Amino acid sequence: MSKKADQIVVPARPKRYEALADEIAEAIRSGALRAGDRLPSVRQASADRRVSPSTVFEAYYLLEARGLIAARPRSGYYVTGASLPTTAPAAAAPVLAQPPGEVQAVAVAERVQQLLGQTRDRDLVPLGSAFPSPELFPLPTLARALGRAMRALDPWRTVEDLSPGNETLRRQIAIRYIAAGFGLDPAELVICNGAMEALNLCLEVVARPGDLVVVESPCFYGALQALERLGLRAVEVATDPRTGVDLGSLAELLQRHPVKACWLMPNFQNPLGSLMPIDNKRRLVALLAARGIPLIEDDVYGELYFGASRPPPAKAFDEAGLVLHCSSFSKTLAPGYRIGWAAAGRFAAEVGRRKLMSSLSAALPSQEGLAEYLQHGSYDRHLRQLRRSLADSLARSLRAIAKHFPPGTRVTRPEGGYFCWVELPPQVDALQLHRLALSHRISLAPGALFSADQRYRNHLRINYGHPQAGRSEAALKTVGQLACSLART
Amino acid sequence: MSKKADQIVVPARPKRYEALADEIAEAIRSGALRAGDRLPSVRQASADRRVSPSTVFEAYYLLEARGLIAARPRSGYYVTGASLPTTAPAAAAPVLAQPPGEVQAVAVAERVQQLLGQTRDRDLVPLGSAFPSPELFPLPTLARALGRAMRALDPWRTVEDLSPGNETLRRQIAIRYIAAGFGLDPAELVICNGAMEALNLCLEVVARPGDLVVVESPCFYGALQALERLGLRAVEVATDPRTGVDLGSLAELLQRHPVKACWLMPNFQNPLGSLMPIDNKRRLVALLAARGIPLIEDDVYGELYFGASRPPPAKAFDEAGLVLHCSSFSKTLAPGYRIGWAAAGRFAAEVGRRKLMSSLSAALPSQEGLAEYLQHGSYDRHLRQLRRSLADSLARSLRAIAKHFPPGTRVTRPEGGYFCWVELPPQVDALQLHRLALSHRISLAPGALFSADQRYRNHLRINYGHPQAGRSEAALKTVGQLACSLART
Repeated sequence: MSKKADQIVVPARPKRYEALADEIAEAIRSGALRAGDRLPSVRQASADRRVSPSTVFEAYYLLEARGLIAARPRSGYYVTGASLPTTAPAAAAPVLAQPPGEVQAVAVAERVQQLLGQTRDRDLVPLGSAFPSPELFPLPTLARALGRAMRALDPWRTVEDLSPGNETLRRQIAIRYIAAGFGLDPAELVICNGAMEALNLCLEVVARPGDLVVVESPCFYGALQALERLGLRAVEVATDPRTGVDLGSLAELLQRHPVKACWLMPNFQNPLGSLMPIDNKRRLVALLAARGIPLIEDDVYGELYFGASRPPPAKAFDEAGLVLHCSSFSKTLAPGYRIGWAAAGRFAAEVGRRKLMSSLSAALPSQEGLAEYLQHGSYDRHLRQLRRSLADSLARSLRAIAKHFPPGTRVTRPEGGYFCWVELPPQVDALQLHRLALSHRISLAPGALFSADQRYRNHLRINYGHPQAGRSEAALKTVGQLACSLART
Repeated sequence: MSKKADQIVVPARPKRYEALADEIAEAIRSGALRAGDRLPSVRQASADRRVSPSTVFEAYYLLEARGLIAARPRSGYYVTGASLPTTAPAAAAPVLAQPPGEVQAVAVAERVQQLLGQTRDRDLVPLGSAFPSPELFPLPTLARALGRAMRALDPWRTVEDLSPGNETLRRQIAIRYIAAGFGLDPAELVICNGAMEALNLCLEVVARPGDLVVVESPCFYGALQALERLGLRAVEVATDPRTGVDLGSLAELLQRHPVKACWLMPNFQNPLGSLMPIDNKRRLVALLAARGIPLIEDDVYGELYFGASRPPPAKAFDEAGLVLHCSSFSKTLAPGYRIGWAAAGRFAAEVGRRKLMSSLSAALPSQEGLAEYLQHGSYDRHLRQLRRSLADSLARSLRAIAKHFPPGTRVTRPEGGYFCWVELPPQVDALQLHRLALSHRISLAPGALFSADQRYRNHLRINYGHPQAGRSEAALKTVGQLACSLART
């Protein structure tokens, strides 16, 4: 505990959720709330206190990370009997990084392959993995849907279901967007081999070699790889660990540089886990539309929200047809099936043509199987379970990080997805930590993966999407101890 | 019959197969062979006359096209009672076209999409289709293999079976090359979303925007589309309708232009159906290796041979690791499954990396299902049936063309695959014929699709891979009549 004394935390304005958490913590300290008491549901507390459900969620997470309350599955949050560790708060959130805002050539592919090649070994604890645990998905149910669909297949569908893809599947995907608050014309959808191909095709359509593309900082390495592949140049924009792209910084970049496109993740950004507030999304779309700049929106984590409802994608505010929205089932339902899609607005026909030219169509069995599952399966029930697992796992991981990582560590508290972003004390070299962790059979995704210029040297992306059997917490304890030893030297 | 009188045929040296055919025709005319007599098997005749099996095959095709003999399934060739139509020979083979050999920018995508978009309608007779009939494939057996494999799936395979792909599948593919006379290391194989993606990735790896790539003339439009997508320029090389790329012309092109790569189809070229003799393949590989020029080899039809054994791909002669060999199961076993591969020699690692960067991996269900089928299925038996169907269908189609198409028509006689190439009299505009045929519910692939400069205005690619119920022959009769009317105007 004494280690926490020299914790270096940049002071920040207290946020609404922090104020709420402090208020509840005070109620526990004063005895108004006692061990075993159930807290009001998120919905109830949101209504009572006139704050958003996500504010309540955040407050509860914070209290949970502090050990003051604990979630019981399908029941709610309860006050623990913990000894009120007011001197051991949760790790603070990282502050907004200021990337140089300069144009950079991109050459990350080899580094990424080297670092990630190691994460596929199933004997490693996959804190560095890009995927949630495959055990979280209804694979046997999907296999049955697949078998049914393929046995009943009309052979001529093998010729007809080329790009833009299976009609039933496209209709089912379009229907899901209604839950996110907007209508999407199935005719705009092109089925692709996962979101990765969809994003790559969209990028090909809107940018030519040498063009400038804005990405977040830190940034999903897959975007950097796509830029590298197409000979594009990156400009990184400051991205808030909680609220995503900093619109002021973006506006300034657009003034300074002839930007051809943006590639952004408004919902649960990889690696930060940040979520752009709805109003920011609206302003983002308007800012780009005013300049005629296409936005490639990577929304693969949009369905993995922990709040009350699916956050809308930026696409929901697209009136100019300039948002090329991409997503997939790979992170939510069917890993390995390689079914993603692009809803590319005014570029939809061109994306469809590129798809035909580059890989013809997505795999028919995957398309047929998913169309069958979505019509007759229980995708929503599965998603509810999945979100609960991930949210629980996040709380446990944040607790382990707060407990074991060195003083001065900061960590994001995402409202969805399965990544959090850890800022270690500046003297800790994350690549060194990564090598040490590997010798303990733990994979990590060091910060150097997430920018073109290898900044974020003392950062890690932590995958908390492997909730089974406490392996992750034990691994986080080990990583924390390794980080502590590096912090001291 | 009198129409045949004004047939314009460029005189050619009689080929060995033509001499053999003439000899047999003479035996029939003299009465030495009579209606109902069975001809010796291809193998037998080949041994007796000391000619290659393919020479016998060609001779029999020619006689069949002339109506003098007919194939009976699983039995062999028999002399018909036809009235010896010596004045109505089969249409002659087209002559070697001489493309300009100049560098060309490529812009074909829109034309291709327009023309081919129409071929997906199942109510059309698909003479213009790129696919063989889906009814030729063991789809129910595959569906069962797929269901079995996916029900038994270890969930962690969804994370582990990323590029380069499922290990069992890669081993099974490598084993098949032994039949083509050479060993292939499974480690060299990258599983892709069909051959189309494999070819595109190979092209990306060996050429940069603005580079020159040699393609055949006429050329598969998919190659032209790939060049266009990547901003590459094409040089078309003279290609013999029977023996493929003219090596003299190629050597000359390589002297004149800074060629970065070649994209060729040595086996059953699309659209010609030409087959490079083994010695030519060897010389092709040596010619390119001497200049360090990579060869992208599209071998998707290699398993669809009508001769005695699988013709080796150019890859079999690759000692420098410069041949990037691509193929798939889409034309031979599993349409729509989107499983292809690249064996990219010294570029294998880079192709694997590009695959990871652009679409991560091929669909897991397709990979698992095919691995299961190849281990326990009866792929070779299926292939034998498929080849027999296609060969029978070719003979019927050649007969219909010889009978109904206008005098002066020339047609290739492929030894494999499911395309033949028809050269109509010069006054027939194939695009006009295409439009007329569409109004008769018949699709055609006009010659303009098969070159960057829209030469081949009086040519058609005919798909004879739809053998069901004589629909194709009836359609060929209609097309022939339409062509005759255009030839007269």
